[in-house]
Parts: sequence; C-alpha cells; structure tokens
Amino acid sequence: SSVSLDPYLLTIANNKINRILSLCPGASSTGATPSEEMNGTGNLMDFLDEPFPDVGTYEDFHTIDWLREKSRDTDRHRKITTKSKESYWELIKSLLDAWSGWVVMLLIGMLTGTLAGVIDLAVDWMTDLKEGVCLSALYYSREQCCWTSNETTFEDRDKCPQWQKWAELMTGHSEGAGAYVLNYFLYVLWALLFSFLAVSLVRVFAPYACGSGIPEIKTILSGFIIRGYLGKWTLLIKTVTLVLAVSSGLSLGKEGPLVHVACCCGNLFCSLFSKYSKNEGKRREVLSAAAAAGVSVAFGAPIGGVLFSLEEVSYYFPLKTLWRSFFAALVAAFTLRAINPFGNSRLVLFYVEYHTPWYMAELVPFILLGVFGGLWGALFIRGNIAWCRRRKTTLLGKYPVLEVIVITGITAVLAFPNPYTRRSTSELISELFNDCGALESSQLCDYVNNPNMSRPVDDIPDRPAGPGVYSALWQLALALIFKIVITIFTFGMKIPSGLFIPSMAVGAIAGRIVGIAVEQMAYHHHDWIIFKNWCRPGADCVTPGLYAMVGAAACLGGVTRMTVSLVVIMFELTGGLEYIVPLMAAAVTSKWVADAFGKEGIYESHIQLNGYPYLDVRDEFTHRTLATDVMRPRRSEPPLAVLTQDSTTVEDVETLIKDTDYNGFPVVVSRESERLIGFVQRRELTVAIKTARQKQDGVVSSSVVYFTEDNPQVAEACDPQPLKLRRILNLSPFTVTDHTPMETVVDIFRKLGLRQCLVTRSGRLLGIITKKDVLRHMAQMMNQDPESIMFN
Amino acid sequence: SSVSLDPYLLTIANNKINRILSLCPGASSTGATPSEEMNGTGNLMDFLDEPFPDVGTYEDFHTIDWLREKSRDTDRHRKITTKSKESYWELIKSLLDAWSGWVVMLLIGMLTGTLAGVIDLAVDWMTDLKEGVCLSALYYSREQCCWTSNETTFEDRDKCPQWQKWAELMTGHSEGAGAYVLNYFLYVLWALLFSFLAVSLVRVFAPYACGSGIPEIKTILSGFIIRGYLGKWTLLIKTVTLVLAVSSGLSLGKEGPLVHVACCCGNLFCSLFSKYSKNEGKRREVLSAAAAAGVSVAFGAPIGGVLFSLEEVSYYFPLKTLWRSFFAALVAAFTLRAINPFGNSRLVLFYVEYHTPWYMAELVPFILLGVFGGLWGALFIRGNIAWCRRRKTTLLGKYPVLEVIVITGITAVLAFPNPYTRRSTSELISELFNDCGALESSQLCDYVNNPNMSRPVDDIPDRPAGPGVYSALWQLALALIFKIVITIFTFGMKIPSGLFIPSMAVGAIAGRIVGIAVEQMAYHHHDWIIFKNWCRPGADCVTPGLYAMVGAAACLGGVTRMTVSLVVIMFELTGGLEYIVPLMAAAVTSKWVADAFGKEGIYESHIQLNGYPYLDVRDEFTHRTLATDVMRPRRSEPPLAVLTQDSTTVEDVETLIKDTDYNGFPVVVSRESERLIGFVQRRELTVAIKTARQKQDGVVSSSVVYFTEDNPQVAEACDPQPLKLRRILNLSPFTVTDHTPMETVVDIFRKLGLRQCLVTRSGRLLGIITKKDVLRHMAQMMNQDPESIMFN
Repeated sequence: SSVSLDPYLLTIANNKINRILSLCPGASSTGATPSEEMNGTGNLMDFLDEPFPDVGTYEDFHTIDWLREKSRDTDRHRKITTKSKESYWELIKSLLDAWSGWVVMLLIGMLTGTLAGVIDLAVDWMTDLKEGVCLSALYYSREQCCWTSNETTFEDRDKCPQWQKWAELMTGHSEGAGAYVLNYFLYVLWALLFSFLAVSLVRVFAPYACGSGIPEIKTILSGFIIRGYLGKWTLLIKTVTLVLAVSSGLSLGKEGPLVHVACCCGNLFCSLFSKYSKNEGKRREVLSAAAAAGVSVAFGAPIGGVLFSLEEVSYYFPLKTLWRSFFAALVAAFTLRAINPFGNSRLVLFYVEYHTPWYMAELVPFILLGVFGGLWGALFIRGNIAWCRRRKTTLLGKYPVLEVIVITGITAVLAFPNPYTRRSTSELISELFNDCGALESSQLCDYVNNPNMSRPVDDIPDRPAGPGVYSALWQLALALIFKIVITIFTFGMKIPSGLFIPSMAVGAIAGRIVGIAVEQMAYHHHDWIIFKNWCRPGADCVTPGLYAMVGAAACLGGVTRMTVSLVVIMFELTGGLEYIVPLMAAAVTSKWVADAFGKEGIYESHIQLNGYPYLDVRDEFTHRTLATDVMRPRRSEPPLAVLTQDSTTVEDVETLIKDTDYNGFPVVVSRESERLIGFVQRRELTVAIKTARQKQDGVVSSSVVYFTEDNPQVAEACDPQPLKLRRILNLSPFTVTDHTPMETVVDIFRKLGLRQCLVTRSGRLLGIITKKDVLRHMAQMMNQDPESIMFN
Repeated sequence: SSVSLDPYLLTIANNKINRILSLCPGASSTGATPSEEMNGTGNLMDFLDEPFPDVGTYEDFHTIDWLREKSRDTDRHRKITTKSKESYWELIKSLLDAWSGWVVMLLIGMLTGTLAGVIDLAVDWMTDLKEGVCLSALYYSREQCCWTSNETTFEDRDKCPQWQKWAELMTGHSEGAGAYVLNYFLYVLWALLFSFLAVSLVRVFAPYACGSGIPEIKTILSGFIIRGYLGKWTLLIKTVTLVLAVSSGLSLGKEGPLVHVACCCGNLFCSLFSKYSKNEGKRREVLSAAAAAGVSVAFGAPIGGVLFSLEEVSYYFPLKTLWRSFFAALVAAFTLRAINPFGNSRLVLFYVEYHTPWYMAELVPFILLGVFGGLWGALFIRGNIAWCRRRKTTLLGKYPVLEVIVITGITAVLAFPNPYTRRSTSELISELFNDCGALESSQLCDYVNNPNMSRPVDDIPDRPAGPGVYSALWQLALALIFKIVITIFTFGMKIPSGLFIPSMAVGAIAGRIVGIAVEQMAYHHHDWIIFKNWCRPGADCVTPGLYAMVGAAACLGGVTRMTVSLVVIMFELTGGLEYIVPLMAAAVTSKWVADAFGKEGIYESHIQLNGYPYLDVRDEFTHRTLATDVMRPRRSEPPLAVLTQDSTTVEDVETLIKDTDYNGFPVVVSRESERLIGFVQRRELTVAIKTARQKQDGVVSSSVVYFTEDNPQVAEACDPQPLKLRRILNLSPFTVTDHTPMETVVDIFRKLGLRQCLVTRSGRLLGIITKKDVLRHMAQMMNQDPESIMFN
C-alpha cells in the first residue's frame, strides 16, 4: 500500500483498521489478539482508565449497529416502565432516568462554558506574556493591568506604567534597537517554549489531543468506535495544550478543539448514567449536543452552534437531540457570560455594530470576496492535504516535535515585525471587523478629518485615507500572504489546532483591503455612474469593516463548506438581519467556487486521508451498480463462511472462528438449500461455546450446535450432548436481494446505520455486504484507487 | 364505525381512504371506479386543471414510495449527465437542470413575499373598513389616511379629520348613543359580510382552502397524495378568503394559511420543471422549503421559518433542502420588506425593544406563565378536537356557512364593546408587547408620573399604576376569557384560519396582566425580600411587555409543541440574545405541562382526527410485538394473493385484479415453495396485459404469464403465445423476517419511506405489512380503537 495511516496518531489503527473494521473477507490479518494490541498503546493514558469492553459492546475501531443500539435502549426503557409500576422508589428511579438527559445537558453546558472561560483568560494572559509582564500583579493580562492601575486620567492609563515590556524590565530601556532585538528574541523564545510544552504534553499523555478533532468526531458520531478519543486525559491535555498552542502565536484557532473538548465533557458525563454509558447510540446523541455547546462557547452563538452540529458534525440528529442541543448550547453560553472573560458582558467573540446599511451595488465586491474565499478554500484544502500526505509518507512524520518547533520558530520570527501578525489572531480579526468611529485611534482609522466636521460621532462621512491607512494596507497585504502560506503548514501538526480563526483572518484581511479600496474609490470618484446613486459627497456609504466580515465568512465557507450555520453564526455576531444578504451571497458563491475544485470540505478530506469509515450523507451515489456487484464473496473467492442450523459441530465452529476474522456468521438451513435463518455475532458465539464447555456437562468438540427452534432429538444415547444456541441467534438479519440497486443499499446503510447486510435471491443466501464494502465501492466508483487512498 | 371522516372536506376520501390507501386485505370496497368518484368532486376546480395521472404516478389518497422516487430521480440525473457529454446544447440543458432548484426557490420566495405583502395591505384596509372610511382616498387604511393628510401639527393629525367613522359619515354625529349603535351595527354587518363571502368562496371554488392547512401539508410532506390540495385555485381562493376571514375580526390568524399559500406557490413553480413536477419525492423537497418561506414572511423570521419547517412540518429534510429553504426564506423576507406593508422598514410583525435586563427572580413568574401556556394548550386541543368531532358526527357539519355566520356574529357582537378585542389581534399583541415609554399615550401606559422626573425617556423608573391601567386590566381579563372560549370554536371552520395569532394573543394578555401585577408588587413592596436585591425604589426593574412576550411564547408552545423554532422566531422578533433564557424556560415548561395531558400537538391531533396516514417521527414505538403479529393475512383470513413466476395464466391474473383491490402482488417461484422473487404493481400489470392483448399477437386468456429470466420454452406449437412480464417486476422488494421487532419495522418505514414490506421466514413468503397496517398497529398499541378513530 502506497499511503500508510497517520503513523503517529493512529499507530494502533495501522494494523487494526483493515482487519477488524467489519466482516471483511480477504483482508490481511496480523494475528495479534486484542490484548496484545492494547499493549502497543501504552502511551494512551485513557486506556488505563477504560475497562476492557464487555460482551455486547464493541471493540476498538469497529462500527456500531444503530438498529441494535436502539432496540437495546427500548428494552431498557420497557424494563424501567414495567418496574416503575411496582413501587414508589422504582417510580422515582424511572423519573430520574427520564430526566437524566436534561441533567447531562446541564452539566455539559456548565463544564464547557467554564472551560471555555478559563481557556480565554489563560490565552489572554499568556499571549501578552510573550511581550511583557504586569508588575502590579503577575497574573494580569495587559488589558487588565492597564485598566486596574491607579492612574486617574485616560492618557496616563493609556501609557500604562505598570505594564512593562521585557526589554524595559531587564535593561531599563524601552526604545532603541537593543530593546527591539531583546523583545524580538524573547517573543520567539516564549513562543518556542509554549509550543514545545504543547507538543510534548500531547506526545506523552494524550496523542489523541492533537489536531482540530472535528474529522474524528464526525466519524465517531457516524457510528465508529475510537476508544480513548474522548477520554478524561484527552480532555485535560487538550485543554492545557490548546492554551499553550494558541498563546504560542501559531496560525491556529481554538474553535475546532473546543468542540473536541466539549465532546470529551459529554463523554465524561455520559459515564455517570448507565443509560448513556452502556449504549453507544444514546451516547452519540449526547455527543451531538455537546458539539453544539462547543461551538456555542467558541463564538458566543448558541443557535449557530446547534445548526453547526446539525449541518456539519452530526449523523443521527433526531428532534429530541435538537432540543437538548439547544439547551446545552444555551447553558454553556450563559456560563461563559457569567465568567465574562472578555470583560465586556458580551457573549460574542467579535462584537460589531455598523451604522450604515449596504447598497445593491456593493454586492459585486461581496461576490468577488466570495470567489476569493472559494479559491482560498480550494487552495488550502489541496495544499494542506498534500502536506499532510507528505508528512505521513516521508521521514517528516517521524519528528513531530521538531516540526512543531520549526514551524513555531518561522511563525514567530516572521510575525513579530508586522504589528498585524504580532498580536493574537482574534484581536486582529476584531480590529478588522470594526467600523472606524471618531474616537478610534488605530492605524486603520487614520483618515484625514474635515476640520469643521460637526456630526455625531457615529455617523462619519467617507473621508480620504491618511498615511496610516496606506501603511496599514501594505502591512495587511504582507500579513495576508504570510497567513495564507503558514496556515497550510500549521493545520494538522501534533498540537491542538483549529482553522476557523486563521481562515477568518485571511478573509477579514482580504475583505478589509477590498473595503478600503471601494471606500476610497467612492470618495474620490463619487461622480462615477456606479457610485452616483448611493454615495453622495459627505455621506457615509461604505463600511470597510463589513467587507472584512463578509470576507471572513467567505473564507470560512470555502474551507468548511458550511452555509446556513455559517450565516447564522455571523448573524449572531452582528445581531442584525440587515447583513444576512451580503453574508449569504458571499457564503454561497464561495461554496460554489470551492465545490468546482473538489466536493469535499477540509473535514471530509481529512477523514478520507485518514481512511476513517465515514459514510457521508451528502455524497450522492448515482451509479448503476447492483448489490450483486458489491457483495462478497466475489466469484474468484472461496464461498461465504456460514453455519448450518443443525449440522455443525462445536469443533467446526471453533475452527471457523480461528481461521477467519469476520465479525459474525450467517446461519442457513443446510448447505444445500442455503436458506437463511439468521445471523450470529462472533463475540457471542465465542463466549457461548466457552461458557458451555466450562459449565454444561457433555458438551465436547463433537457436540452438534443447534440453532433450531425445536429441541433436537438425540438419535442415540451415546451421542454427545447437543449445544442449543438459538438464544444468541439474530433472527432478523437485514437482507436485500441481489438485484437491489446499490443506490438503495447505500441509502439503507446511511439511514439505518447498518454494519452489514445479507444478500439473497429467492430466499437463498448469496453473500454479504459490509459498511466497508459499501465505502470501498463508492470510492471505486469515484475513480479513485480505493486500496491506496480510502483504506490505507 | 362510530366516527366518520370530515363530511365536507373529504367527501371523496370517505369511500376511498379505506380502500385504496394501500394493500389492505379485508378492507371494505365501494366498488366505484376512480372516474366515478372523480365526478363526485366536481366542485374541486383544481381537478379540472389536473390531467388524469399517468402510469407510473400515484393515485389520489395514496402513499408514495420514497425509495422508488429517489431511484427514478437518479436515473433521470444519470441520463442527463450522459447526454451532457454529447453536445454543448445538452451541456447547457444539464446546467439549467442543475440550477433549476435555485430558480424555483427564487420564484417561490418572490411570489410568497409579494402575496404576503398584498395580504397585509388588504387586511389593514378591510379591518379599518369595518369602522370607517378615508375620505381623501377610499383605498387608504386609517393609519395611511391620517399620515398622508395635510394637517401640519401632530395634534391635528391625531384628530385626523379625513378619517370618518360610519356614523359620522351617515348622520354627521360622531358622539352619542345613536352613533355608537350605528357604528356597532355596521361593524357587525361588515364582519358578517366578509365571513359570508369567505365561506362561500371556499365552498364553491376550493374546499381545500379551509383551515390552517398545516396538518394536511405535514401529511403530504410525509408522502401522501392529496390531489388539488396545492392547486392554483386553492392558492387563489385561499389568498382572497384569508384576507376576508382575518378582516372579519374572527379569532384567527394568517400564519398557518400563509404556509399553505407558500406551499401552493411551491407546487405551482414545480410544474415549470419536469424534474420536480414528475417526481413526488423531489416535489416534497421544494414544498418543505416553501413552508419555510411561508413562516418567514408570516413573522419576518427567516431562520425561524427554516427551523419551523425542519422541526414541525417536514418529514424528509436533507441538508440540500436546508440550504435551499434558507435561500427561499430570505428571498421571501426581502421581497416583503421591499413591499413594506407595515410602513416602518421592519421585517418583523411585532418589533420590540426593551431597555432593561431581566432578573433571576423573574424566572418564577415566567415559569408560571409557562404552566399557564401548557394548560391553555391542553385545554385548547381537547376542546377544539371535541368540537371538531362533534361537527363531524352531528348535523352541525352539514351547515358550514351557517356555522361561520353564527360564530362571526357572536364574535363581532362581543368584540365591539371591548377596545382590546375590537381592534385586530395583531395590533393588540403589538400593544401588549410594547414597553411603556414616556410618550406612550395608550391606556395601558397610564401610570402616575412623578412630576419632577428628569430622566431620559427610555429609562423610566417603575411607577404606580393610574386609573387607566386598572380599567385596562379589567378589559384585558374579559378579553382573555372571550379569546379562550371563542378560539376553541373558531379553529377548524370552513374558512382559512391559523392559530398562531390567537394563541399568542391569549398568552400576551395573560402575560401582560401578570407583568403589571409583578411590577406593581415590586413598586409598592420593594422592601420584600424577593425584590430587595434587584428592585430599589426609582429603578426600572420590571418590563410588563416582556411578560407578554414570554406568555405568548408559552401559549404558542403549548398548542403547537414547538420549542427551538419558537424560541428562534421570538429571538428574531426582539433581536437580542438577552431574553432567550426567559423564553426558553417558558417554552420548555409549557411543553412539559401540555405533554402531561397528551403527547400530540394541535396539528397531530387534527391529523389523527381526519385519519390521515401520517407516521410521526416523534412517536416512539416501544412495544414488544414482532412483524408476524402485524402482517396480513391473519390466521383466519384467506391466504395472500400471489402470482407465480411461470404458471399463472392471463385469465387468472385478470380475475385476481378484478376480485381484489390491492396495490400490487408478490411473485413467488411456485405455490408450493413460496419463495419470493419479486413484487409487481397493480397498475403496471393492468396496463401491460391490456397493451399485450391489443398489440401482441397470440396473447389470449389462456396465455401463461412468465416472470422468469430465461425465455420460456413453449412445449407444443399449439400452445398460446406466452406473455413475458419480467420488465415490470420489481426484483428488489423490501423484506423483513417474521421475527423482526415491530420497533425496527416502524423505523424502516419511517426512515426509508416505504409503502409496503414483505415478510419472509427462511426465504418463504409469509405475508405483507403496509404503511396502513403499521399505523393501525401503532394505534392499537396505544390502546385506542383503531377502527373508529384512526381509520374512519
């Protein structure tokens, strides 16, 4: 195989994924038992906590059976309902059980909100630590330091004597080349220290804590088991290293990882209630809601969070989950507001308020920004995937720590000289989104004021740009190129890294540049025909901050292909319906442009790269193949491994289990008629035979295994005791006929969440189709080499 | 059967629904042919327009097969893709086809927005016409009349001499008992005229235009065919009669009917593109989006509209539909804004702005309002359903026009004396939501002002209530009782009637009363421990308008059981995240309280009452029955009507078609082995035999029908020519085993949208389960008598 799996993250998967995934005839086997493989994951602390799975649960890197999980939950529910009529205590217990879903949501919301608040505070402090320190209280960030100082006038506060840059503190000089170099050096040093700490913590304690986590969470929510991915250690380490990674000034954000953190919280609270901890289907409902809470605190956008979970992350999203997600997202948002990390009582990350409406003619630049966003999305996905593949196949992947150090070094060295890249990316975005008021002192707002202007401060007419704006434009252009290049190499390293913020930064920079250009054009040429109708001299007609916001939406849309949730998140940031049309136009344009270069968003691309068995609901399967073309065994292969209902001996079964690694076996009436009567799980078969051999007298290797309903008649007294196994037989296996179009089969797998499906013709068993067969076939049909890309 | 179907609306259904619905062995048959029954619906103008359905489409009152529709669409798509490579013209055609979805959305949005704007303007004018007329221009409403008059001062404008009440115009006196009585009389007369016109138009031209339409649209979207329900005549008549019904002052709203109107628009534009007009599955995707556009214009809440369609109305809602719905909802909202019917550039129906936050302690009254809302919801549903059932079973149903006239008369006579019921309900809600500013002149804002108050007008401290407030409280209490009683009798009459607005009015009145009570308590007892912390004297701590809004949300939630979409709609009305928690608390409380009295919302109750075959996604089926308990034939019944693959003659088939009314027949290998090979549709079988008899030489009654793959060997030369029908045989019928839990079967029916499913054991065909069998079984399990309630 030409491309191996991510050698660092998924060492365990390397030899497992191909073999255990599902009932895959003909796949290679390493012959290792699960416990041997467990030892290979010694550095996954979370495995120490998790008990070895029970019978009835799933093995690591396996696909769950949604229908089975659902029917198990119904059984549980039925039992509780029946019991609740017996006594008051049972009734109370049943009520508690019914309410446990809401309790879990409350807990998730509170913990997620708290963690998000703590992360925000810590990032603030540590980002500033790279530049200097607060003398009055070491744990104050620059802003807190300046605002709590004793100075009485605004001007004194702005000077902020309590806050000292490192050079000033060490040498006493705050100006001059020496101080600049020292500050530069310490900035880079701190950045390297933070990122080294981050990558080391991830390596040693929780390898799963790296990356954004959203591709894996999508896969888990679609019904895959990755044990430890949402464990306690991952939660702890991801939270800590996220702070370090963001503070180090790398071109990454905290939004994606916050979703992972929220899902870890969800998983943690699931373990409190057996309703959720023992049912993989119910657990995924909780995780969907937790993802919503994660986005809710990342942006302060609860509705956007729910829609993000619905549109982007979740697989099975019943209405019940919609309500609970909304509740969890709200609780999380309000917990965050109670902590108030931004110190402004605002829920949102970038609060903006614009004072002028937009005009029809502005749709042209907005759509151009959409095109830019789409191009950026396509470029980023191609570049990043190519780099990640390179990382997997070359020596590069062997030195994750070195890679992080080098990228951090380059980032810090290049970022310091440019004021727009030196500061944290969210501050940058916030400034770019801002409308220039009369009191704004930033370089971007350095316009030439009309001295006899006497308007209210909010409604400033368009003015000619001053020298500050022109130098800001140059610096922004450099920052744009820098961000575009460095982000491609940053996303996918072995530290927590989200790409919402860097993508938005790219778009916001581009948008602001376009916005200023349009504004100046409108000012200097207000007699042009396009400006004549809406931009008279002295009017405030162009808001460059709005362009920045539209650009940010376009770029984020190009990378993730979100549409509705993106617009809703942006809508919640601004709080006005006014700007939905520009945002929508840009988001849809960007999606169309990006889709022209490749249908997959960044998350789907990473899922494919890592070979996760993810059946995307959005891919439409439109080929003309039939079930018979996909089912195993193929013509050249040995016949399907089946059991007969009344003629297989215990020894035969044991040999079959030893020789194959299928997840289960179909049971037929007889080898001649091949009429299907049921399906038996490998695990349950193994356990049943083992137990029978130990406990049941007379069950020996030559005992016949019976799956029939009637008691077998023992022909002669000397015959060995039969082994009756009807109770472990699944009498309602899912079947399709061999003429069923694959399109329908794909639909059935998606909607019912099957693991496998048996293929029959006129009642005769012909073969089996597993989820993996479906995925392989879909990849084949898309003219890719399935063996090399989809499945390692 | 004790309860018959709605004798007016569904006369056609009466004898059809039981018989044709699906393959239902043992159901009674009237023996009428479809064309005979068609004649019975001569007053449905829409039937005149619609051609008799083709082979391959569905009959009226039948369930569609989602899987089949989907695979037909894939075939179509495949054909176009293949063709597009042939020439540029075909490529352009294929691009047009790909874009047609967005074009349809654009058209729907524009037409829905325009219709909503026209309806708003017409309702405004006609509501005022009941009281008086504008002398300067007859087509002006009161507000337009007053604001366009030539008076220069505000005071003169308020007197508004151009607007004259009827008494003033006719007798010259505007005061006195005589003028009052004349005004009263004319008010009632106009109301009667409007409602008589409305009910007559509905009766004569489009009986389907009555009611809110949402229960039927839910049923249609779930895959049922009601021909003409979304036709052109229904669109026209519903738009006109909606204006009349709302203007008549009856206790009904325009929101539900607007959803119906939007869906009619959707259906209209579907017919422009064969992609949508010829595929019932694709058509339903468009209708889902149209429903979103309908709610979007009803409230000016595009996001809320999309969520309403997702949460409340739609059945199959893929992500693609989510994006398109959002687009349609936005276009509709902006078209409405361009028309600007409220004259204030606002998108929303009730624009509010509050100046004070809410306090934790206020959650207690908010939750109480939630309890009230839940109780109102339960009472309304019980009362309304009981009344509607009475209408069906007694003579009452025979006189729909009389009923409307009587209810309108009662409403108008009782409404006129009370100023809060005399005006239109949306004006009432708007006033109740309002915060009392300093300039407010309404009776509800008649507080005792502190003469030396010198605060800004927005931030007025709590004040003692003046006499106006106390009299308003009495009038509001009377209005509350009146609205509660009259709404129960109004909803379900034979005119367009929505219940969003009346429900919100009930809640808003109750909320405002509670709000004023809390406000006055806080003012007079600010030393009480609960008020001490947040309500110092001179502070503005309680906003009665917010209580009204929370009450409205609670009542609407109690009736419809919406949660997320309700909160989002309310959030879009206020535009602030601030008040989400109170709204959420009230909505969830109200849902829980109402659910305690019965799980179904008003729409589901009406679906049940009318016996529509609607498989609710929210009902969880938790019983332990198996497929074998549900399948037909039962033990006492004759065996399943099957065809054999190579031993049935044409005559046998024709007899079977004549003697039964099943939708299709399973085909088995032979009667002895009963091994299933496929399923054949009745329609296709009939057509195939007819065609063969006419065109194919040698096919006579004794010809054998072959479904086999190989060519039949004609044994003797004198044997009649065989009829090969494999091409119409569905080789992949859906099967389950007899041991499959019904829970799984229900899930399969829901998620895959099946019409029927065959039951097998070890490959032998045992029976069949249709959607109707599933519904009947579910009803049975809920301890209802299915024959009397669910199916007529």
